Amino acid sequence: MLSLGTPGEQQVRRIGDVTTEAGGVIRDVHIAFRFWGIPRVTATDSNVILVNHALTGDANAVDWWAGLIGPGLAIDTDVYCVICTNALGGCQGSTGPSSPHPDGRFWGSRFPAISIRDIVATDHKLLTSLGIDRLAAVIGGSMGGARTLEWALMYPEMTTAALVLAVSARASAWQIGIQCAQIASIEKDPDWLGGDFYSTGVSPDAGMATARKLAHLTYRGELEIDERFGTDPQEGEQPLGVFRSADERFAVESYLDYQAQKLLARFDAGSYVALTEALNRHDVGRGRGGLNKALASMSVPTFIVGVDTDILYPYHQQEHLSRNVGNLLGMAKITSPVGHDAFLTETRQLDQIMRRFFRLLRAQGDRPLAAEGVDRHS
Amino acid sequence: MLSLGTPGEQQVRRIGDVTTEAGGVIRDVHIAFRFWGIPRVTATDSNVILVNHALTGDANAVDWWAGLIGPGLAIDTDVYCVICTNALGGCQGSTGPSSPHPDGRFWGSRFPAISIRDIVATDHKLLTSLGIDRLAAVIGGSMGGARTLEWALMYPEMTTAALVLAVSARASAWQIGIQCAQIASIEKDPDWLGGDFYSTGVSPDAGMATARKLAHLTYRGELEIDERFGTDPQEGEQPLGVFRSADERFAVESYLDYQAQKLLARFDAGSYVALTEALNRHDVGRGRGGLNKALASMSVPTFIVGVDTDILYPYHQQEHLSRNVGNLLGMAKITSPVGHDAFLTETRQLDQIMRRFFRLLRAQGDRPLAAEGVDRHS
Repeated sequence: MLSLGTPGEQQVRRIGDVTTEAGGVIRDVHIAFRFWGIPRVTATDSNVILVNHALTGDANAVDWWAGLIGPGLAIDTDVYCVICTNALGGCQGSTGPSSPHPDGRFWGSRFPAISIRDIVATDHKLLTSLGIDRLAAVIGGSMGGARTLEWALMYPEMTTAALVLAVSARASAWQIGIQCAQIASIEKDPDWLGGDFYSTGVSPDAGMATARKLAHLTYRGELEIDERFGTDPQEGEQPLGVFRSADERFAVESYLDYQAQKLLARFDAGSYVALTEALNRHDVGRGRGGLNKALASMSVPTFIVGVDTDILYPYHQQEHLSRNVGNLLGMAKITSPVGHDAFLTETRQLDQIMRRFFRLLRAQGDRPLAAEGVDRHS
Repeated sequence: MLSLGTPGEQQVRRIGDVTTEAGGVIRDVHIAFRFWGIPRVTATDSNVILVNHALTGDANAVDWWAGLIGPGLAIDTDVYCVICTNALGGCQGSTGPSSPHPDGRFWGSRFPAISIRDIVATDHKLLTSLGIDRLAAVIGGSMGGARTLEWALMYPEMTTAALVLAVSARASAWQIGIQCAQIASIEKDPDWLGGDFYSTGVSPDAGMATARKLAHLTYRGELEIDERFGTDPQEGEQPLGVFRSADERFAVESYLDYQAQKLLARFDAGSYVALTEALNRHDVGRGRGGLNKALASMSVPTFIVGVDTDILYPYHQQEHLSRNVGNLLGMAKITSPVGHDAFLTETRQLDQIMRRFFRLLRAQGDRPLAAEGVDRHS
């Protein structure tokens, strides 16, 4: 039996050096993870599910997917063992720009650009080092969905099934445009110091706040933001005064300021740049003969989920995935005013979708998957 | 017969002092305009059409709506006289932050916040000073559409009909959020100098470039941007290198940089802030008993147009307008991958829509409008 440590507690493992897809080297990589439930892995079977977090998420999946992972919940930890890592490049326990370099200083600008594939390869290294060489499923939304797609392509023999939410087969030009604007707002902050602001006593908070506000406007549907704030002034402020003033705000400005401050308190600007850049480089077609050839080659049964009001990863991108993946297990649309973040917030719909995913998986379990592939008539 | 000067040439008139909706005073306002065709205004009739430009537009409507205004075109200058002003707060001939103040220095930070209503009141002052006290129609898209809605509400006796494209009854919280991000990027540029950078030798170009890039991503549909650029690298650059570099760009970044540089060459940052702020304050319901009461009170026959892929002014906002305006002449949806800017670029569809608008108007002309209102059965 596998021994992964204490369930629910954050643990960190050293997994050695990592060479990135682009040829950079990250020495002595640490990866943080948590797990819940009892892992059972045999030569032919596994009850371990890997859950992949999104851009600013962390290994504490029961927190950011509260109500969906736990005993008796959709991702049932009485049945499955759920494991969640902190992504390479992150700042919640895994090696990233804010981590100490082997020379004792910080990685900072020396941290190379990473791709989604680098994150997945690193997680793969961690899991195999833990004795997990087969997964019952890989699940994730947004950047976690991109990681899940790459799992199915890079390690199909290990990835029994994939549940991919609110993502696309590659970055769109629009995404790259808005993501580069976020990166630029951080890199142009004078306190960024070329990425080497660590231990200087300053940090690019203003640039990071701007980045988060922009991102938040892509994460939230305009219907949801409007139903909450409309053109209301912030209490005690006068946004319609004789002169414009940055201190006299509409309620929505105050809300976005608050969102930015919340992120500043928990996230590193270097990691924000590194992981946003990884999303810019997301492209399952690279080196695989193009997008649709790569998707067609996917043998892992894959369930695709989108959100009807998502402007960051519009629903047609999930339709594209569902039409082109080689082994479509099913598809679902989340209907919500919330936009992209619905993959985190629409718990009732997610619960139903995840339960359906597992029902389909169990139905498949009666037959050898590799021989028959998905049964499209079930 | 009216004499407006030389057709097609930019002219500037002084219209005196303007007191803004919020109580500010702008002394000795100048308004620039151009016209095409021969104006005919009688006590009961007029062939003059006012065309309202959008945020960074100007009085040269035959340029930014090329193919739609001219002899024999949809807005037929053989029949109508088209007049187009440069909005108050602008920088293409009318008084704005970059204009000389009566004291000989620049307005700069002394230029008060203006609303869409202030722009319309100022245009009204210009038109009546020119002897135009009746309009055959008022037409505009985006900020021009907001101005058109306010024309119908502020001067219904003068506005025979309205054609309103790609706008909403008020700013949405999402619009305010993204517009405030643009304003902030300019105001936080050290070369903004509190709005008084004029004649200092510097200008907030970096902040303005960022603002324009953000705006452009809201003006263009992600389908259109993606079909043009996808994940292509900019020629000769390597955005997938070992380290991230702002100099190694995706093609879409280069495109956005180019769009920003184009605007820098022709537009003032102070005007950009002033007019974006006017859009933040756009709300036809203010002081009129709320949004739908204001719209219901609109007696002017109004034709509403939206774009199916517009993320800045989503189509449901035009549906809201069409359901609530007191006198709906008709509605049309532009189908386009282009997004918001389709109101400028989809010339063939715009041509059809405008011709239909004028057919409906002529059909109404057979009956006294005030007595019967719009014929919904025509």
